[in-house]
Amino acid sequence: MRKPRLMAPGPAPVPEEVLLEMARPVIHSRDPRTKQAIKEAIEGLREVLKTANDVAILAATGTGAMEAAVIHAVPPGKKALVLNAGWFGLRWAKICQAHGIPFETIDVEWGQPVDPARVAEALTGRDDIAVVCGTLSETSTGTGHPIEAIGKVVAETAALFAVDGISGVGAMECRTDDWKIDLLAVGSQKALMLPPGLAFVAVSPKAWAVIDSFEPKAFYFSLKAARKKLAEWDTPYTPAHTLIFGLVKSLERIKAEGIENVWARHKTMSDACQAGVKALGLELFSARPAEGLTAFVVPQGLKDTDIRKKLDDRFGLSIVGGQDKLKGKICRIGHMGYNDEVDVVGALAALEMVLAELGHEFEPGAGVSAAQRVLIGQGSPVGAA
Amino acid sequence: MRKPRLMAPGPAPVPEEVLLEMARPVIHSRDPRTKQAIKEAIEGLREVLKTANDVAILAATGTGAMEAAVIHAVPPGKKALVLNAGWFGLRWAKICQAHGIPFETIDVEWGQPVDPARVAEALTGRDDIAVVCGTLSETSTGTGHPIEAIGKVVAETAALFAVDGISGVGAMECRTDDWKIDLLAVGSQKALMLPPGLAFVAVSPKAWAVIDSFEPKAFYFSLKAARKKLAEWDTPYTPAHTLIFGLVKSLERIKAEGIENVWARHKTMSDACQAGVKALGLELFSARPAEGLTAFVVPQGLKDTDIRKKLDDRFGLSIVGGQDKLKGKICRIGHMGYNDEVDVVGALAALEMVLAELGHEFEPGAGVSAAQRVLIGQGSPVGAA
Repeated sequence: MRKPRLMAPGPAPVPEEVLLEMARPVIHSRDPRTKQAIKEAIEGLREVLKTANDVAILAATGTGAMEAAVIHAVPPGKKALVLNAGWFGLRWAKICQAHGIPFETIDVEWGQPVDPARVAEALTGRDDIAVVCGTLSETSTGTGHPIEAIGKVVAETAALFAVDGISGVGAMECRTDDWKIDLLAVGSQKALMLPPGLAFVAVSPKAWAVIDSFEPKAFYFSLKAARKKLAEWDTPYTPAHTLIFGLVKSLERIKAEGIENVWARHKTMSDACQAGVKALGLELFSARPAEGLTAFVVPQGLKDTDIRKKLDDRFGLSIVGGQDKLKGKICRIGHMGYNDEVDVVGALAALEMVLAELGHEFEPGAGVSAAQRVLIGQGSPVGAA
Repeated sequence: MRKPRLMAPGPAPVPEEVLLEMARPVIHSRDPRTKQAIKEAIEGLREVLKTANDVAILAATGTGAMEAAVIHAVPPGKKALVLNAGWFGLRWAKICQAHGIPFETIDVEWGQPVDPARVAEALTGRDDIAVVCGTLSETSTGTGHPIEAIGKVVAETAALFAVDGISGVGAMECRTDDWKIDLLAVGSQKALMLPPGLAFVAVSPKAWAVIDSFEPKAFYFSLKAARKKLAEWDTPYTPAHTLIFGLVKSLERIKAEGIENVWARHKTMSDACQAGVKALGLELFSARPAEGLTAFVVPQGLKDTDIRKKLDDRFGLSIVGGQDKLKGKICRIGHMGYNDEVDVVGALAALEMVLAELGHEFEPGAGVSAAQRVLIGQGSPVGAA
């Protein structure tokens, strides 16, 4: 029957009531009901992001939010410092490059977290660094970076801290204000349980002071224009309002569960998935796993494309492979969005069936039962390989 | 009962089967079915836009497509020439300004069309003008500009011709290739019968030659990156794929009707709406009405907000007022998207009832019957006031 099971690290599945909300008759984008939805969306996002900051809503995907953040953060004569530990860390550098924004990188081996001490060292005596660009959850490697600790380091300087929270926000703890994140970029299609098409930037007062000190070259992504319209719960250009109506619905779900509980559930799903994968004799790729996805190394003798094709063909289970230099080397299972603990166990069950068929040797049921032990509180979460 | 009737010049109503298509379970954005949809969408758009050019799909609204067009069209040392005859013509200038792109304007009274002879004059002996930025349908005034004639003028020079087709494409004739449009910006939420969130840029070979001659400062809106991915029916960053699936459905509708018939239907709706409005003693605002909307002058002694509020409260009919300096001075009825001839007659009927209640004097039924006469081929379309 091939039931669809989307367990990618984004896009992630969307609850039925959110999909149906967006299927209602389209109303005008400047209708009072649209403004009400924008208000509710922003208030809800502030709870999810743990922030009192302004939150700009963009009709774009997450990369647009990253671009918006960095073009507003670097006044002429200043530089960005990019924490590059994967394909999406590298994206910050590519955005800078495309816009002629000078930047330096701290390069970290893919799969390893950024060491806050290296950031501290790189910032010492450097008043030309206007922004440090980091990543909450590096989707390409399945690594969670120590954003809280890096935020402490950056907060002691004049530099801003811009964080790509696209696959992290909602799937792992992220306290924007407490962790001193000045520009947080978020996308709709991950743990926020929406299709792609909306992006958000939370902007701190420290960031506004920088933004107001120069003329950022931005129109569609202008945060100043967004701030002006936020005052009346509007957007500077046509809002992608059907998605915003959906967002209000998905935020209701998150609010009902409680964001701390949502984080805890993702942590449990992550622990369970890691335990399951290891019990199948597979090696975890990341030294510090993110909580919205689990990356494992493709075992010797198997092809990632075979694993993924069989999962999709037989069970409609869509996971992803590696990107760029990790192509063919890892597989990534997403457990975010409208996926819960039972979906994680199901994915492991499907993975076992497919691995068995491909000749990988392991004790049948080992993955599922290891995950189950974590879920019922009898197994200890495993560390990295 | 207050049935919703969205007759704004965008966002416009979306067919039920398109809404339901987008409510299907979300699949992965790099699934072969997504690539197939991107392929079908681009092939369908080429038919609708009458072009063999590359068509980039952006996760953005129309303003994003305008920004993408202009930042790729002006190499260093060159200028843009903006045809400014309304709020959206002015938008080209604002985008240039925000990006530090030098520009000049041809300023035309709002409601009047741009005279191609003025464009020819402005371009004479000017090899520093890299692009002329025009508007197919100026939504703020309800004016259709003579794009074919302007295209002929621009084509004789080295300058590119960038056209904002956002509220025009699908609602009035637009032959991208024959009319020599080098960069056509389109949005999803107008005559293409989709919610906001997708934007398109059709890029001619002449435009590519300019784009390839320098390094445009673009990342999210990079047309070079888009071209690279188009070869494999993909987008450089996450596509707003649920909207693309919807687009495939709405394009099926347009294809079934035939784009020439769609244009003809909008022309008839426009003629009927104009005839109806004039028969009520109202003055048309535009000297050269666009075909996706009708703008009329708010009669002496009435308030536009009263008219619009009553239409909305009593009949769920959502039309819009004026923007910027036309605020309070005009009302605009959209007849595009999922609206047909009967909807136009219905809007006129509702308008009559509301105007009567507000004390405007006219012969009851005059608007509706004037429109009807056009629709059954017995009335001649009226000219402008």
